[in-house]
Amino acid sequence: MRRDAGEGGALVTDATPGPEMRYDLLQDTWVLLAADRKHRPHDYRPPAEEVGGPETCPFEPGQERQTPPEVFALRAPDSFPDGPGWRVRVIPNKYPALRPNIPPVHREEGMHRALGGFGYHEVVVDTPHHTRHADVWTRDEWRDWLEVLRNRVTTLSRDSRVEYVQVFKNHGRAAGASRAHPHTQILALPLVPKEVRVRLRQMQAYYQAHAACYLCQEALWEHEQGKRIVYENDAFIVYCPFASRFPFEMRIVPKMHHHAFHALSDALLDPLGNALQVALRALHRVLEHPPFNLLLHTAPPEHALSTFDHPVPVATYGHWYMEILPRLGVIAGFEFGTGYYINAVPPEQAASLLRP
Amino acid sequence: MRRDAGEGGALVTDATPGPEMRYDLLQDTWVLLAADRKHRPHDYRPPAEEVGGPETCPFEPGQERQTPPEVFALRAPDSFPDGPGWRVRVIPNKYPALRPNIPPVHREEGMHRALGGFGYHEVVVDTPHHTRHADVWTRDEWRDWLEVLRNRVTTLSRDSRVEYVQVFKNHGRAAGASRAHPHTQILALPLVPKEVRVRLRQMQAYYQAHAACYLCQEALWEHEQGKRIVYENDAFIVYCPFASRFPFEMRIVPKMHHHAFHALSDALLDPLGNALQVALRALHRVLEHPPFNLLLHTAPPEHALSTFDHPVPVATYGHWYMEILPRLGVIAGFEFGTGYYINAVPPEQAASLLRP
Repeated sequence: MRRDAGEGGALVTDATPGPEMRYDLLQDTWVLLAADRKHRPHDYRPPAEEVGGPETCPFEPGQERQTPPEVFALRAPDSFPDGPGWRVRVIPNKYPALRPNIPPVHREEGMHRALGGFGYHEVVVDTPHHTRHADVWTRDEWRDWLEVLRNRVTTLSRDSRVEYVQVFKNHGRAAGASRAHPHTQILALPLVPKEVRVRLRQMQAYYQAHAACYLCQEALWEHEQGKRIVYENDAFIVYCPFASRFPFEMRIVPKMHHHAFHALSDALLDPLGNALQVALRALHRVLEHPPFNLLLHTAPPEHALSTFDHPVPVATYGHWYMEILPRLGVIAGFEFGTGYYINAVPPEQAASLLRP
Repeated sequence: MRRDAGEGGALVTDATPGPEMRYDLLQDTWVLLAADRKHRPHDYRPPAEEVGGPETCPFEPGQERQTPPEVFALRAPDSFPDGPGWRVRVIPNKYPALRPNIPPVHREEGMHRALGGFGYHEVVVDTPHHTRHADVWTRDEWRDWLEVLRNRVTTLSRDSRVEYVQVFKNHGRAAGASRAHPHTQILALPLVPKEVRVRLRQMQAYYQAHAACYLCQEALWEHEQGKRIVYENDAFIVYCPFASRFPFEMRIVPKMHHHAFHALSDALLDPLGNALQVALRALHRVLEHPPFNLLLHTAPPEHALSTFDHPVPVATYGHWYMEILPRLGVIAGFEFGTGYYINAVPPEQAASLLRP
């Protein structure tokens, strides 16, 4: 037996039937098979709208015992873990897609390959308030949220078996949120994921061809062009990408080159919070509370960089950023077949509507 | 000016503001910007459930004049184009993502690249019956549908500017269908899409390592294992893939090696229709009319194969197949960030429920 999460996780016996990752050779990707999350055939149906309000919500203050023990929290000095008094609270996911007690060991089934479902799956309860979504957060709330993310990415990256930490927020049912209470998810993975590999390969190829960081160049280009800009402050630029996959998609890019989000200095917390605040308020104003995904794209932990460091180091060509993907439509057959997206709103038009 | 679609398409002037494809360097993919499909901000919201029944549906017999002129149909010998009497009818999409009158010419905007939105976007009206979905089709209806797809893929592949033809069916709103009347879509593209390139590269690498076709080997392995098999007939095998991304995902694979669907012999139409019929009926039985995507994965047209033919020809390593992706959940932030999927239902369990 070992502890489920770094600090304070629930005890899980080694006999617990565990998840695994399976390799999809045709698409060169992996699937997380989290087999113990559901059981009966009617559970396979999509969940109905969440019923009940704060009184049945395990993310409410006073109901902390309904979740696994917290692994981190920003809380009042006189408060205790797993009691009220917190501003942001991090807990292991009750139905994790990956588990820290499963060794990332390879298994073969004839021609097929699998990997033990090692990893961490955490939930950040963004706020004690059941309906206080990100579009109304104050500067202090953004600062708290970013501090917690920085802390968790840093902590999870210290585990030498972790090769990437994916931070994402699903807001609204149509964007995959299964709970209404504002929250963010963090998955620490035993592999550098397909799309991260593609991005690092592409950034490195660009650097080799142009002796410049792609995102530094793109941010400068967008700043000069202006037509896709939503907002800028001294340290961050927000724009609708030239090849936006989704209507009103936004990229939030630090102007100063750095490959790793978790190295973010304290001085950049407020400017980043400000950029996110303006972006989400604009989205809310134009589209009236749309469902969206918010993603962090950063570099793998230091110990996982070696295969991406040649011939140019990741620190030279990598540039972290965030992304907001509004979910107004449905991903359908065309997107699955091709990997291409169809977008009916030019980013130039989206930006002109989003600009404050 | 030139005609919109091969046979009988509407006339579109060159001045019509056209769609374009834009290159997303970070993810090495393209976006189809179909800018003239929507106009006002409230149009960006997801569409409400389709209102009205057959009387307002442009896909009904007798209402053919509401669609662009048909490009192909299976119809009674005494009937006329764009009138009733058809069993399956193919029309250009009224809101195409790509258009045949736009040259596939490259454009640069500083560091960004775009390509004229050349292509064909067709709709196959599967049946004259507004509510006759694929799970109840007879052998003859499957045969008609497959004959039409074979015809359209063959015809569109003759255009030397077409580099891939993607066939897909979105069934149900949650799978992206915007109309209730049973239909299938065909997009002919001026590029070989990202996921097709990945698949061809992976199949070729497997061939070079094992001197065998990956899907021939996988079909044989699954046949021997049995535990993921849903159905088999003499010519086709249906199974839940080892690394299923979606619960109850099914792969329909021809047992005889061939890289191109459109070379399908008449003798294989009924066995393929039979395999699809059994698969969809099983899905319907277990999950009670779930939304799903049905995809064809085949090779690019002959004239677009050259870059994939070395050192091993596509005809040697390529193997076409179909795929059914039930859409019980929502694609969310994790999937966009990583390219990995989380699946809560092991394919072995799914297959045991789906087997007739």
